[in-house]
Amino acid sequence: MNKFMDKDFLLDTESAKRLFHEYAENMPICDYHCHLSPKEIYENKQPSDISQLWLSGDHYKWRAMRSCGVDERYCTGDATPKEKFLKFGETLGWCIGNPLYHWAHIELQRYFGIDTPLSGKTAEDIYEKANEAIANGDFRPQSLIERSNVKVVCTTDDPIDTLEYHKLLAEQDLPFRVLPSFRPDKALNIENEGFAEYIEALGKAADMEIKNTGNVVTALCKRAEYFDSVGCKVSDQAFNYVPYNTEASAGKAFDKAIKGKPLTQDEIDAYKTTVMLYLGAKYKQLGWAMEIHIGAMRNNNTAMFEKLGADVGFDSVGDCEIAQPLSRFLDKLCEGDCLPKTILFNLNDKDNTVLATMLGNFQSSETAGKIQFGPAWWFLDTMDGMTAQMKSLGNLGVLGKFVGMETDSRSFTSYGRHEYFRRIMCRLLGRWVEDGWYADDEEMLKQIVQGICYNNAIEYFKF
Amino acid sequence: MNKFMDKDFLLDTESAKRLFHEYAENMPICDYHCHLSPKEIYENKQPSDISQLWLSGDHYKWRAMRSCGVDERYCTGDATPKEKFLKFGETLGWCIGNPLYHWAHIELQRYFGIDTPLSGKTAEDIYEKANEAIANGDFRPQSLIERSNVKVVCTTDDPIDTLEYHKLLAEQDLPFRVLPSFRPDKALNIENEGFAEYIEALGKAADMEIKNTGNVVTALCKRAEYFDSVGCKVSDQAFNYVPYNTEASAGKAFDKAIKGKPLTQDEIDAYKTTVMLYLGAKYKQLGWAMEIHIGAMRNNNTAMFEKLGADVGFDSVGDCEIAQPLSRFLDKLCEGDCLPKTILFNLNDKDNTVLATMLGNFQSSETAGKIQFGPAWWFLDTMDGMTAQMKSLGNLGVLGKFVGMETDSRSFTSYGRHEYFRRIMCRLLGRWVEDGWYADDEEMLKQIVQGICYNNAIEYFKF
Amino acid sequence: MNKFMDKDFLLDTESAKRLFHEYAENMPICDYHCHLSPKEIYENKQPSDISQLWLSGDHYKWRAMRSCGVDERYCTGDATPKEKFLKFGETLGWCIGNPLYHWAHIELQRYFGIDTPLSGKTAEDIYEKANEAIANGDFRPQSLIERSNVKVVCTTDDPIDTLEYHKLLAEQDLPFRVLPSFRPDKALNIENEGFAEYIEALGKAADMEIKNTGNVVTALCKRAEYFDSVGCKVSDQAFNYVPYNTEASAGKAFDKAIKGKPLTQDEIDAYKTTVMLYLGAKYKQLGWAMEIHIGAMRNNNTAMFEKLGADVGFDSVGDCEIAQPLSRFLDKLCEGDCLPKTILFNLNDKDNTVLATMLGNFQSSETAGKIQFGPAWWFLDTMDGMTAQMKSLGNLGVLGKFVGMETDSRSFTSYGRHEYFRRIMCRLLGRWVEDGWYADDEEMLKQIVQGICYNNAIEYFKF
Repeated sequence: MNKFMDKDFLLDTESAKRLFHEYAENMPICDYHCHLSPKEIYENKQPSDISQLWLSGDHYKWRAMRSCGVDERYCTGDATPKEKFLKFGETLGWCIGNPLYHWAHIELQRYFGIDTPLSGKTAEDIYEKANEAIANGDFRPQSLIERSNVKVVCTTDDPIDTLEYHKLLAEQDLPFRVLPSFRPDKALNIENEGFAEYIEALGKAADMEIKNTGNVVTALCKRAEYFDSVGCKVSDQAFNYVPYNTEASAGKAFDKAIKGKPLTQDEIDAYKTTVMLYLGAKYKQLGWAMEIHIGAMRNNNTAMFEKLGADVGFDSVGDCEIAQPLSRFLDKLCEGDCLPKTILFNLNDKDNTVLATMLGNFQSSETAGKIQFGPAWWFLDTMDGMTAQMKSLGNLGVLGKFVGMETDSRSFTSYGRHEYFRRIMCRLLGRWVEDGWYADDEEMLKQIVQGICYNNAIEYFKF
Repeated sequence: MNKFMDKDFLLDTESAKRLFHEYAENMPICDYHCHLSPKEIYENKQPSDISQLWLSGDHYKWRAMRSCGVDERYCTGDATPKEKFLKFGETLGWCIGNPLYHWAHIELQRYFGIDTPLSGKTAEDIYEKANEAIANGDFRPQSLIERSNVKVVCTTDDPIDTLEYHKLLAEQDLPFRVLPSFRPDKALNIENEGFAEYIEALGKAADMEIKNTGNVVTALCKRAEYFDSVGCKVSDQAFNYVPYNTEASAGKAFDKAIKGKPLTQDEIDAYKTTVMLYLGAKYKQLGWAMEIHIGAMRNNNTAMFEKLGADVGFDSVGDCEIAQPLSRFLDKLCEGDCLPKTILFNLNDKDNTVLATMLGNFQSSETAGKIQFGPAWWFLDTMDGMTAQMKSLGNLGVLGKFVGMETDSRSFTSYGRHEYFRRIMCRLLGRWVEDGWYADDEEMLKQIVQGICYNNAIEYFKF
Repeated sequence: MNKFMDKDFLLDTESAKRLFHEYAENMPICDYHCHLSPKEIYENKQPSDISQLWLSGDHYKWRAMRSCGVDERYCTGDATPKEKFLKFGETLGWCIGNPLYHWAHIELQRYFGIDTPLSGKTAEDIYEKANEAIANGDFRPQSLIERSNVKVVCTTDDPIDTLEYHKLLAEQDLPFRVLPSFRPDKALNIENEGFAEYIEALGKAADMEIKNTGNVVTALCKRAEYFDSVGCKVSDQAFNYVPYNTEASAGKAFDKAIKGKPLTQDEIDAYKTTVMLYLGAKYKQLGWAMEIHIGAMRNNNTAMFEKLGADVGFDSVGDCEIAQPLSRFLDKLCEGDCLPKTILFNLNDKDNTVLATMLGNFQSSETAGKIQFGPAWWFLDTMDGMTAQMKSLGNLGVLGKFVGMETDSRSFTSYGRHEYFRRIMCRLLGRWVEDGWYADDEEMLKQIVQGICYNNAIEYFKF
């Protein structure tokens, strides 16, 4: 029996151990997509206790607690930090098989020096010890990022954002870079409440009047140029489904939306398609990578949405058909030589085969792995999800050119997820080597492992 | 090489063996969903031979035989019991990798004391030995249920059922309880032939006239109260897809259906949605759990349906999109504080991720694991299907709060499926412990294993 | 650590080794579906070098190269054979986890006697050695087929094909048979450009005028009879989705298509449904097997399609719902006793459960495994894809009656894929035996393994 989460955690062959400890473990981190707050990085405040660090914004943990019947008071409510932590500790004991269990223990081990497994029995003791570590150590965001060996952090930013904190951070002499990403979801989601207000704000940010869909594109392009000037190299869009409609009128859709009239699905899709096609061309021109996150179904619980807002743990996985519209969208860009580097992320693992084969339709000699299959993300950021994604990519594409992991996280201690990913990646590759499925070619293996850990991303994004 | 299906069958680590033999093996069974006949349990007749017990109603076995080219005569036809058994024995030898192979041998070992593998060569000999065991032993339903250590059996009953056998059974001094479940499929399936006749029968059962959709709901609620008075704690619905339409007219749908006029899909869905929303609220009020079985495609072979009717082995797995309508349905109930405890079952494993993440949207502090991911069912009731379901739930929810297995069976020897499930569950958990993925915390492990075997269900359903 | 791809490659238990080496390894091959050219087999030319053999028509290899950023010049362009091979060698080193990696090395070992792993470092050396082997050996198609122990090759042929090369080959005294398959895609794809021209050509081939859908059917049936007379026993259709519409007018669809007018989706489907229903009945009458390949999404990259045409590596996997229309189609044939032996292939592994359970709806005593779940194909022709397909079939059908592998290939050295399949099959079965999941019944195991390798196919197709 292996020891609980020791140095060889998840590494079940000698080859896996060697690949991880010799090549992967000490590689820096390029976190090319996350939801960290540049303001918080800049302000760099020490957390008061582990509950603030762990439980003040982590919807993964809240979901687990709610699933154990824990009252909302201990999640987003007014319970004390200690009460919240004790409830979380009790919850975690039941989470056998959940990545949260592993993430939490990696974080306890690496950042707090605590090796005791967390459960109801140990929660109080661990609460005290963790807070002692915080009291006696530097747990400020910049320190946590640096200790995690992170070289690049790409945050997620609205086109109307001033990026003031990015600029302030750029002036500091930090051992890592914090770069913005361009996420124009609000300009695309024409069907959402508040669209008209957003468009007005976008007009102000771009210093122009927005009267039609063409103006939206122009304004977004202006903002993209501004983002580019602050170091942005990545755009990001969230699609709950993949819109593609080139027949209905995007112009009419815009007019109706601004006037608050209801839109047909065709009109919504026509607007999104038009804007995305022009944005894609702009990203290509700027040399950016276009990330597309497909398949979340958000805010499913109306009562809780009205109480707590978005991103608090009431999202789940959709199951739309995506192959046809995604192919048409990428092809349309490709036909006009306007397809940027693209990373496709799916939230439903049933789509692995669709995405892993979609890549091959649009590769080019511009760069190795121009079209990427994004790493297993959010709900799929698990042992099984990551293994399935890498096997799919391995089976159907070229795994050696994979840009690897990002955290997609809102927490400063979540860099353990890169370690988790690397262990799983080395476990998979190590098994293949051990079983004689790949040549005993140490030089290639080192290049592949270090490429997936860090080098491929740096080269791909041109950071 | 391991011995064929010995006491450590499927238990491939020391931890798995310990978890199964020390904690799981001797736990009682709560079979919270099955298709056993309360009449047959009450009448408690000794079977004449193993063919009557095994082959007179088991569509799993008929399907396997037909797949080997066996003539229908030996399945549902007039061949002798011995001829049928010999054909089944021959078939089974080809069924490598099929759960039927394991179920049959578990049953031969546990109920008949026969260790010989069944195939064409051994079928005749086993036929004699099994019949000898029946001749010399008690194979009546009540004995088989008791020997299987079953404490609760929930049958599946139509709202118009008188439940007379449940009442008669309740009067007996049995070591297990037989409770009804409320399955209103016929009242929901407005598109089916015979709907008008059924509605009339429902009116009679509820002692009222049914003139509109509201009356249907009232009649069903009256019957639900009656069921409740006889000990019912579970409702069950079969959805081949998930209907959700709040725009079309349920009233118009009802009128047309009663008059035998064709309905649009929107009308069908509006009727089903309306009735289900009110039923959900009723279940909530009664404290029942609502089981939803999603995704069967029934009676695919028209010629055989006309010859033999339903439930004889001509069903398969559908592939509709379910995420959006299911989310809307549960949310609508939740908004009005009318969402009962709910168990979601999928028949297509492509939906595992959708369901396992859907749960988290609607959990509450009413009870741990209020929304459950039902165990792998019917076609998924396999080593791979059960493992995938538990991994999904482990990855995406809280496996420790899982209510575990039911048989969904029509056969009195099928309790071996609980053993099969427990071995697979302990194999999975044992592997995680063995590999150092979960803390070496015997007390928690015991609670988790015994919870999933039995305790969680008893607590959840309030049996 | 196992040696790289040695004689026990993929065979990870003693049982797997025994099953493969004693029963599977030396069985002949029945390649019941491929895209080899009967003309090339007849002309039987020696290739000039390994690039001609490997890189002149293999879209799998081109896709991998493009995914590594290799310029099109080295794929389909005018680079020298050596340049192309060096680029491919370099690419292959990155393809960890890809079946191409294994296929290439099996071919190097078996046909060229080269054991060195191919990568950028070794490519030049291997290029020389392989060409030396070609210079000094017989690498002509007939020799490669014979050396591969192939007994039957079914090519893929258009109904208007004269089959002249099949006839010429039949006159030769070859140790294998080359038979045509009937693939009427062009007559079905009424929505494609060139349909009217094709129909005219079909009329000529069938020596009749084609004025309506009924004439199309008649012409195809005449050609099917001709194919039958030349030894055809298999038909094959490619469905990107499954059309089923019995309400719209197939007649109107045909009229519009011939006149070049646009068709509605319903009309397209009505035409396809009508023609397929009659063709199915014809296949049944001829005793043929009907292969249906479902789910490819072809020619996704318009720019490259215009430059290079079809089948050059720009296809991927679709995700349509297939359960309902496929069930209706098969049922309609079955109702009229017109359902031929049928093999269902899916390209999206999310459909495994749908197909593996669909079989059971339509089995009959005509032949064992009348409805077959086709082997993992094209993008799924991988370790994971094949294992998943066999597990699905094992779990949900009768694996022992499986007709096994075909290459679906355009290359004369691709028979290594049968070896690859057999190793994976023996690995899976061996593991089950080793773990005590299947009886230690050597006679049954031998029959199952040799059945899946060869015997089942020969018996099923009546070759």
